[in-house]
Amino acid sequence: MLGECLENVRLTTPLVHNITNYVTVNDVANVLLACGGSPIMSDEPEDVADITSICGGLNINIGTLNKRTIEGMYAAGRKAKELGHVRLLDPVGAGASKLRTETAVGLMKEVEFDVIRGNISEIKTLALGSGTTKGVDADVADAVSENNLEEAIAFVKRFAKDVKAIVAVTGAIDLVTDGDKCYVVRNGRPEMGRITGTGCQLSGLTTAFAVANPDNKLEAVAAAVCTMGLAGEIGYANLKDGEGNSTYRNRIIDAIFNMTGKMLDDGAKYEVR
Amino acid sequence: MLGECLENVRLTTPLVHNITNYVTVNDVANVLLACGGSPIMSDEPEDVADITSICGGLNINIGTLNKRTIEGMYAAGRKAKELGHVRLLDPVGAGASKLRTETAVGLMKEVEFDVIRGNISEIKTLALGSGTTKGVDADVADAVSENNLEEAIAFVKRFAKDVKAIVAVTGAIDLVTDGDKCYVVRNGRPEMGRITGTGCQLSGLTTAFAVANPDNKLEAVAAAVCTMGLAGEIGYANLKDGEGNSTYRNRIIDAIFNMTGKMLDDGAKYEVR
Amino acid sequence: MLGECLENVRLTTPLVHNITNYVTVNDVANVLLACGGSPIMSDEPEDVADITSICGGLNINIGTLNKRTIEGMYAAGRKAKELGHVRLLDPVGAGASKLRTETAVGLMKEVEFDVIRGNISEIKTLALGSGTTKGVDADVADAVSENNLEEAIAFVKRFAKDVKAIVAVTGAIDLVTDGDKCYVVRNGRPEMGRITGTGCQLSGLTTAFAVANPDNKLEAVAAAVCTMGLAGEIGYANLKDGEGNSTYRNRIIDAIFNMTGKMLDDGAKYEVR
Repeated sequence: MLGECLENVRLTTPLVHNITNYVTVNDVANVLLACGGSPIMSDEPEDVADITSICGGLNINIGTLNKRTIEGMYAAGRKAKELGHVRLLDPVGAGASKLRTETAVGLMKEVEFDVIRGNISEIKTLALGSGTTKGVDADVADAVSENNLEEAIAFVKRFAKDVKAIVAVTGAIDLVTDGDKCYVVRNGRPEMGRITGTGCQLSGLTTAFAVANPDNKLEAVAAAVCTMGLAGEIGYANLKDGEGNSTYRNRIIDAIFNMTGKMLDDGAKYEVR
Repeated sequence: MLGECLENVRLTTPLVHNITNYVTVNDVANVLLACGGSPIMSDEPEDVADITSICGGLNINIGTLNKRTIEGMYAAGRKAKELGHVRLLDPVGAGASKLRTETAVGLMKEVEFDVIRGNISEIKTLALGSGTTKGVDADVADAVSENNLEEAIAFVKRFAKDVKAIVAVTGAIDLVTDGDKCYVVRNGRPEMGRITGTGCQLSGLTTAFAVANPDNKLEAVAAAVCTMGLAGEIGYANLKDGEGNSTYRNRIIDAIFNMTGKMLDDGAKYEVR
Repeated sequence: MLGECLENVRLTTPLVHNITNYVTVNDVANVLLACGGSPIMSDEPEDVADITSICGGLNINIGTLNKRTIEGMYAAGRKAKELGHVRLLDPVGAGASKLRTETAVGLMKEVEFDVIRGNISEIKTLALGSGTTKGVDADVADAVSENNLEEAIAFVKRFAKDVKAIVAVTGAIDLVTDGDKCYVVRNGRPEMGRITGTGCQLSGLTTAFAVANPDNKLEAVAAAVCTMGLAGEIGYANLKDGEGNSTYRNRIIDAIFNMTGKMLDDGAKYEVR
C-alpha cells in the first residue's frame, strides 16, 4: 500500500543530498522535512563526495545549472553510484537549451539514475533527442490527456526500459513506470502550476520515498507522486478567501507535514496499467 | 487604462528570463506566476543565450552578482537586444560598491535597457556617477517626498531622456517616466519595506507587463508599479492579528494573483505630470 | 535586561552583511527585517570588502560554500576585522565534510570571530577536530540534555575561552557563554527542527543584536537566542488547524516582527551558570 511507503519515510528519516536550483531550494528542503526526511545541500565539486557519502539518496535538479555545479553533479553522481545510493534526475528545462539537454543526457549515461522525474516535454527531449520545452513548463501540445493516454503510457514505458530507470512524468495526469507496470495518477490540481517549484519539490520528496523503500521503489515513487497531488488537493481546500498562489505553496507543504499513511491510502487516485 | 495592461499579461503569459539574486528569486518567480506570466531563471554564460531566445523579456537584477553571472548578464543582454526583446535593469546596490556601480553602468551601455527600475539612491548613482546608497535601501536624505516632488520629477525625466529608457523610481512616492510623461504613483504601504525583495518582485512583474504591452510600454510599467503598490495595500488589509512581515509577503503575492483589471483601475492612485 | 537588547536593534537598524547559503537566505533576510535590522547579501570576492565596509556586522554561514564564496568569506572577514565590525560564524555542516571543517577552522584563525553559533556536533568538531555531524543536524548522541548539562556547560565554556569568542550552542537546551558566564536557555519548540534554517535565521538575528549592543555582546547574544526560541513558542501557539512546517516558518518570523522588549523579558526562560 502507498501509505506504508510514506510511513517508512517517517520511520527512517532518510537523509537526501540535493544539488538543486536556487529558485525553489528552500521549498525542497521544507518538503523533505515535511515528509519526514532530512535535506542537505552541497554543489561544490570538492564538497559533494563527502556529503553524498553520509546520505541515502541524491537528488540532481538542473534548473539553474552552471559549469561549476555541473561538475559537482557528476562528482556526486559517481560517488552515489559507487555507494549504491538512490539517484534521481530532474531534467529541468531539457530541450530549452543545448547545455541543459547535453547535461541531462550526459548525467544519465554516467550516473545511471534510479528515477527520472520531469514533465512530458523534458522526457520527450531525453527520449527523442529533441523537444518543444516552453521554458520550464511542458508544451501544451505534448500534454498527457485522456485522449492520448494509451500512446503516452506506451511511450513512457519504452523510455523507462531503454534507460533502465523508473520514470515519472508529471502533469495533469501523472505516469510512473519501470517499463512494465505503469501507475496512472489522477491526483492534483491545475492551480499547482501557478506555484513555482512543485515539480522540484516532488523530486526531493520522491528521492526520500525511494530511499526509505529500497525493496519497493516503483511503488514508493508512485506514493510520492500521489502524496504531492493529494497535498495539492488538501492545500487547495484549505485556502481561505483572498489567498492565492503564495499561500497555496505553504498550504501544500503543510498538508504533506500532516499527512498520514491512512490519508494517503484513502486519497490516492490511481490505476495500474 | 492600466487594468488592460494587467489583463494583457494574463491573456498572453509572457515568458520572462530572470538573472536575479538568490535572496528573493523564489518570490520573483511566484510573483510572475501570480500576474499571469511565466518565469525562467538561468545565469550560466553558456546557457543564457538559448534561454533568453525562447523568452519575451529579460530581467537583470545585480543583487548578488558575481564574476560568472555578470558575464551571463552581458551575454543574455546582448542576445535579448539582438532579438528586440524587452530588457529591464534592476541596479540593486549601485552606489554601495564599485563592482555594482560599474556593472550597472557597463550593462546600461551595452544592453540599452527598455526599463530601469530602482530606488532613488541607485538611480542617482547611475545618473550622477555617485550616490549615498545605504546598503540595498535608499538613503532617507534622497527620498522622493511631496516637498521635493517637482525637482525629483525633473531629475528623473532628464535621466530617462539621457539613457533613452523608461525609468521607474520606487519609494514612498513612485515616479515612472519616459522623459516626457511622468506617472506619479501613490499606492503602497511603508510596511512593504520590512519585507525583503518587493523591489525585485516589482522588476520581474514590470518585465512581464512590458512584454505583454509592446505598443504601450510606459503605461505598462506604470500599471506594474500600481499593481505592486495596490497589492501591498490589499495584502496589508488582509493581515490578521499576530501576523507580520513574513505572512505579509505571501498576502501581497496572493493579492496580485487575485487582482483583476477592474480592481487595478479602481485602486490605482496616480497622476500624470 | 534582554528586552533592551531587542529594543536597541529596533532603535539603531544595524546593517548586516550576510554571506550565507542559498537554501535559507530569504528567511535570514526577512528575520533581519523582522527584528529591526537591515540585511545585505554579497559573496563575490571583488564586492565583499566594499559591502562589508558600509555594514556594522558580518554573518558568515558555510551552508552551501563553494571555492569562490570561501574566498569571499575570507576577504569580507579580513575587512570586517580591520574595521572592528562584529563577526559571526555559523559552521553549518562542520564535521560532515573535509572542506566544511577546514573552512570553518581556517576562518576562525584568520577572522577571529566575536560569536560562533552552531549545533553541538558542529561545535564539537571545531573544538575537538572531529565530530559526528549527521548532515546539517546535530547527532542525537551529542545533544545537550538535563543529564549531561554540567559537562556540556564546562565543555562550551572551555571552547569559548580557547577561541576567545562568545559561543552559542543551540538545540533543545541552548548554551551561550563567553567562557565565564553561561546562559542556559530553555525557550523554543522541538517542531522548529522541522523547518529548514531556523539556525541560519538565528545567526543573522544574533549578528544584528551584537551590532546593536556593542558594550553588552554576551547578553545581546543570549537575547537573540531567547527571541528566536520565544518566537518559536508564539508561532506554534498561533498555528491553526491543518497548518504545518511551512506556515510555521512564517509565523515564527511574524512573531519576531511583533515582539517587544517587554514580551521578550516576560517570555525568556533562562538561568545563568
